[in-house]
Amino acid sequence: MKLSATGLCGTDLALAAGELGPTHRILGHEGIGRVVKIGAGLTDCPMQVGQRVGVAWIRDACGRCAMCLHDGGETRCVQQAHSGRKVDGTLAEYTVVPYRYVTEVPEDISDELLAPIMCGGVTAYKALKICGATPGQWIAISGAGGGVGALAIQYARAMGYRVLAIDAGDAKREYCLSLQAEAYLDVTKEKDIAAAAMEVTEGQGASAVLVAAGSASAYQDAFGMLAPFGTLVCVGIPPPSQLVHFHPLQFIDKGIRVIGSVVGTRGDIREAIEFVRRKAVVPRVQTVTLDQITEIARLCASNKVCSTFCILT
Amino acid sequence: MKLSATGLCGTDLALAAGELGPTHRILGHEGIGRVVKIGAGLTDCPMQVGQRVGVAWIRDACGRCAMCLHDGGETRCVQQAHSGRKVDGTLAEYTVVPYRYVTEVPEDISDELLAPIMCGGVTAYKALKICGATPGQWIAISGAGGGVGALAIQYARAMGYRVLAIDAGDAKREYCLSLQAEAYLDVTKEKDIAAAAMEVTEGQGASAVLVAAGSASAYQDAFGMLAPFGTLVCVGIPPPSQLVHFHPLQFIDKGIRVIGSVVGTRGDIREAIEFVRRKAVVPRVQTVTLDQITEIARLCASNKVCSTFCILT
Amino acid sequence: MKLSATGLCGTDLALAAGELGPTHRILGHEGIGRVVKIGAGLTDCPMQVGQRVGVAWIRDACGRCAMCLHDGGETRCVQQAHSGRKVDGTLAEYTVVPYRYVTEVPEDISDELLAPIMCGGVTAYKALKICGATPGQWIAISGAGGGVGALAIQYARAMGYRVLAIDAGDAKREYCLSLQAEAYLDVTKEKDIAAAAMEVTEGQGASAVLVAAGSASAYQDAFGMLAPFGTLVCVGIPPPSQLVHFHPLQFIDKGIRVIGSVVGTRGDIREAIEFVRRKAVVPRVQTVTLDQITEIARLCASNKVCSTFCILT
Amino acid sequence: MKLSATGLCGTDLALAAGELGPTHRILGHEGIGRVVKIGAGLTDCPMQVGQRVGVAWIRDACGRCAMCLHDGGETRCVQQAHSGRKVDGTLAEYTVVPYRYVTEVPEDISDELLAPIMCGGVTAYKALKICGATPGQWIAISGAGGGVGALAIQYARAMGYRVLAIDAGDAKREYCLSLQAEAYLDVTKEKDIAAAAMEVTEGQGASAVLVAAGSASAYQDAFGMLAPFGTLVCVGIPPPSQLVHFHPLQFIDKGIRVIGSVVGTRGDIREAIEFVRRKAVVPRVQTVTLDQITEIARLCASNKVCSTFCILT
Repeated sequence: MKLSATGLCGTDLALAAGELGPTHRILGHEGIGRVVKIGAGLTDCPMQVGQRVGVAWIRDACGRCAMCLHDGGETRCVQQAHSGRKVDGTLAEYTVVPYRYVTEVPEDISDELLAPIMCGGVTAYKALKICGATPGQWIAISGAGGGVGALAIQYARAMGYRVLAIDAGDAKREYCLSLQAEAYLDVTKEKDIAAAAMEVTEGQGASAVLVAAGSASAYQDAFGMLAPFGTLVCVGIPPPSQLVHFHPLQFIDKGIRVIGSVVGTRGDIREAIEFVRRKAVVPRVQTVTLDQITEIARLCASNKVCSTFCILT
Repeated sequence: MKLSATGLCGTDLALAAGELGPTHRILGHEGIGRVVKIGAGLTDCPMQVGQRVGVAWIRDACGRCAMCLHDGGETRCVQQAHSGRKVDGTLAEYTVVPYRYVTEVPEDISDELLAPIMCGGVTAYKALKICGATPGQWIAISGAGGGVGALAIQYARAMGYRVLAIDAGDAKREYCLSLQAEAYLDVTKEKDIAAAAMEVTEGQGASAVLVAAGSASAYQDAFGMLAPFGTLVCVGIPPPSQLVHFHPLQFIDKGIRVIGSVVGTRGDIREAIEFVRRKAVVPRVQTVTLDQITEIARLCASNKVCSTFCILT
Repeated sequence: MKLSATGLCGTDLALAAGELGPTHRILGHEGIGRVVKIGAGLTDCPMQVGQRVGVAWIRDACGRCAMCLHDGGETRCVQQAHSGRKVDGTLAEYTVVPYRYVTEVPEDISDELLAPIMCGGVTAYKALKICGATPGQWIAISGAGGGVGALAIQYARAMGYRVLAIDAGDAKREYCLSLQAEAYLDVTKEKDIAAAAMEVTEGQGASAVLVAAGSASAYQDAFGMLAPFGTLVCVGIPPPSQLVHFHPLQFIDKGIRVIGSVVGTRGDIREAIEFVRRKAVVPRVQTVTLDQITEIARLCASNKVCSTFCILT
Repeated sequence: MKLSATGLCGTDLALAAGELGPTHRILGHEGIGRVVKIGAGLTDCPMQVGQRVGVAWIRDACGRCAMCLHDGGETRCVQQAHSGRKVDGTLAEYTVVPYRYVTEVPEDISDELLAPIMCGGVTAYKALKICGATPGQWIAISGAGGGVGALAIQYARAMGYRVLAIDAGDAKREYCLSLQAEAYLDVTKEKDIAAAAMEVTEGQGASAVLVAAGSASAYQDAFGMLAPFGTLVCVGIPPPSQLVHFHPLQFIDKGIRVIGSVVGTRGDIREAIEFVRRKAVVPRVQTVTLDQITEIARLCASNKVCSTFCILT
């Protein structure tokens, strides 16, 4: 496929910084473009030259491990080929992709709105899709001003949830509220963030807490915000040395549960894109060029960035 | 009701030892007996004098808290009246019980087989009922030789699961295997209990780990035994100071989840009794007298007891 | 309790017309008012004189049948006492209500907005809560311009669904679209309503079809509108002689399912009210007086009514 | 792969009789054999020459339709290639199979016990896996003496269910009871089969009714046997002209649901095989030769066959 745009995901910056182990030559896993050539042997490939398509984090899965054999479990395949890690990514002019892992994308959305859905958007959407809360209930999003978090605010609103955004600082406050979060809590200002969350939710607690932040303390706080029978959804990845602790009585007495979510299947990606197509979710994206990446990484590290980035190629 | 038998539950010993805060005058929450008198004002009570009934841990729930308003949530009502804690228990000749919390029990099961189901049995059954594993899969039971654990082995087998029993020592080994556990692991002999569990299950892991043991280390070990998409069910209660820790990546990468289970509803109790009525579960019960309680508490503390106890009154 | 308002539900008109068998002296099951006296013997009743409360269809359930023993199953208790059928209803100045079936309601919603939620609103909300569709997907509502249907449009929108409203005539079209249905299909104009629904949903079909209409043909049409793995939710009740037919291959090939929904639990009622309290759902209500009931029944029969009715007492 | 055995499924006979439209040259979709050659271009194929494998009904799925994009939905892909229908089947010495749809099978089960699991066994297992009943509850199996039905009896027992087998005649009675059904009802002898089922289950009804029979009357009867909140699972396929009818009130009042099940995924096949490997399910199989097929078809039509058939090649 010929690529026209690639979204920048937090994972890319972590990969570039060497935090996730060895990378392949070329990064990029939120790629949008068009089919330019179909492999000669692919007699059963239903795609057509010229068709608009997208590429995501997972470029291939083994199809036979315990993960793959579980319904919808391929996103956890232990042998999966990651775009930019095991195979060349999409920050390129062209890329070769196994057709089973290419997603057809609609024509009526711009490149920069589409690209961030391929990973960040579907990650946010899938976590909400499986969170178990009923629309109308409160969802707390920890790390709500980050790449996945900001998209999660928009998806959660579009899915009928009430959103309590949690992040650090006033820039994030404005950002989260502008994305239609109903309330915002600043971890740098609240002494007891769980108590504050209970107050915001009028004593009910959040029926799901989606932790998009990569810090154990965000997870630790999440337990105290959960409504009875609520669900803590693990999305953000703290450094390996940071552990979260709990006492079993929390689960026994309150009926809460902890689950994890990771990206989404090809079906989830299409569903996530539909929200953008009908303008129920409108990602905030800045278009940048490849040579601005170092600057962007610096900005992101400062936790003051209030948008997602997309590179047009 | 006039009581004829009361099962002894680990909770009773903990209550007697003062570990669970103040108790009421009389302990006992696995009581079996017959209705002898119905309150004069209870014009709509469908029960009849002479009817055989049972009493469980929950003697009343508020009906209006967030717990009670959740389907099946009354077992977590924060104001619930516990038999032996907030109201007088069943280690007595007679007891007065709100009729909505009395369970009709069938005539064709002996007192000593029925009594332990009212709390220990239903606790085991309910934890398995919600564990999410498909019959045919492996269930690991930690603390399998204890009161709830031994009943869990029997229920799990009757529900089609393969059972890996985990406890300490040879007496428990014999006990667990005699209850039809398919395998047994001795925590005093295995260096790496999770690795041993993986070996027993031929690399699959357990689709659910039911931790009936009241120790954080049992919980800690449980994480390593879980199959992909498996469920850790919290049942046993470690001392308040013992915490369990995890890293969110375990949930994200493997799709596992943690839930809690506590006793069962009145519907669950009836379902649990049905297993005993059709002899699919046959509790191992020793009939004792009230004055043997101190001796029993001593025996239980030694972790060498291989049965449940019932006091005929 | 002293009553200040009662909503009029389609069931009332059916009861008044004798279509649902014998009724009690006084109809009414969407009653709002305040506690004026608490029974002398109710030592554990947590309610207070002056407290604002609501009364629904179910005034009591037996607590022991197979329905009641199922989590959340009391709405199907075969011995339940219906307000206006087995016991006196709420079209009265005062009514005596078992406190366990009284719902506390918030102060900051007017009587006329609250009343219709007690039955019509919770019925719509519960059907959507259990319909299995993911927010963002299409829901078709058959009978969308009726009492339950119109509330279902509003709840569905507030829960993030895309709504295809189906009813008869132009008045209903305007009504449904004014309630924010995204599309409307007129059964009097479409030759093939299922085909038209497929077109509206761009070939996807509806992930759930909620049949609020009481006609077998509405059910029959619903099968053809379902997306793969979609759910048909039975809510409306056709005359006893009208049957719906299917071929098992529809279920086998498409993975669809059929379920039923009936009113809601006391927990569901509170959740449904929350939508009104935060103005996510604003019922269209006309305030009328008791002597207008015959006229209203006539209007409803003509299928031209575009509101719900509430009687202030 | 080189084939050593193929199970005979009811579908084969229907295909041979022309009832399911055009077939491919060679029938057979329960094939067992070994890999003899791997395609030259399959650089990422993890299989090895000599490996024991099985082939099922689905030889390929498109991977992009609404069915395929749903978790576990590929069994309903509208473009799927059926073994023996769209591509050559396994009643042959050799067959070429896309490696993603080949299932590794264990060495320690004989060909004749393995083959019938590839379609009939997994069909029975999957229908039970998704039926929603809790082990310990009653499952009614309609058409219990047929190919799928008999395997369903064995799987249901191994999964902890109580089994009520329903079929016609005394030969089937003996067969079903020998497979450990707990009760049997003969449709040729019972006037009111639903009432009889209620009696067998002591008034509870069946928590799931699995209709393996291909007749509308079996479906019609199933409604009357369901316990509250029970599930009717569609598996057998009546002739196209036979419809089943219902009244929505059955769903509304009793909380029942209707779902469908079709074969199983590659993960389901492995799970189904595990039951055979540990001897929890032991199919009753007669080994026959190809030239006996006409005779077998005749026998099957008479509904007197009490086994499954396997052809060793």
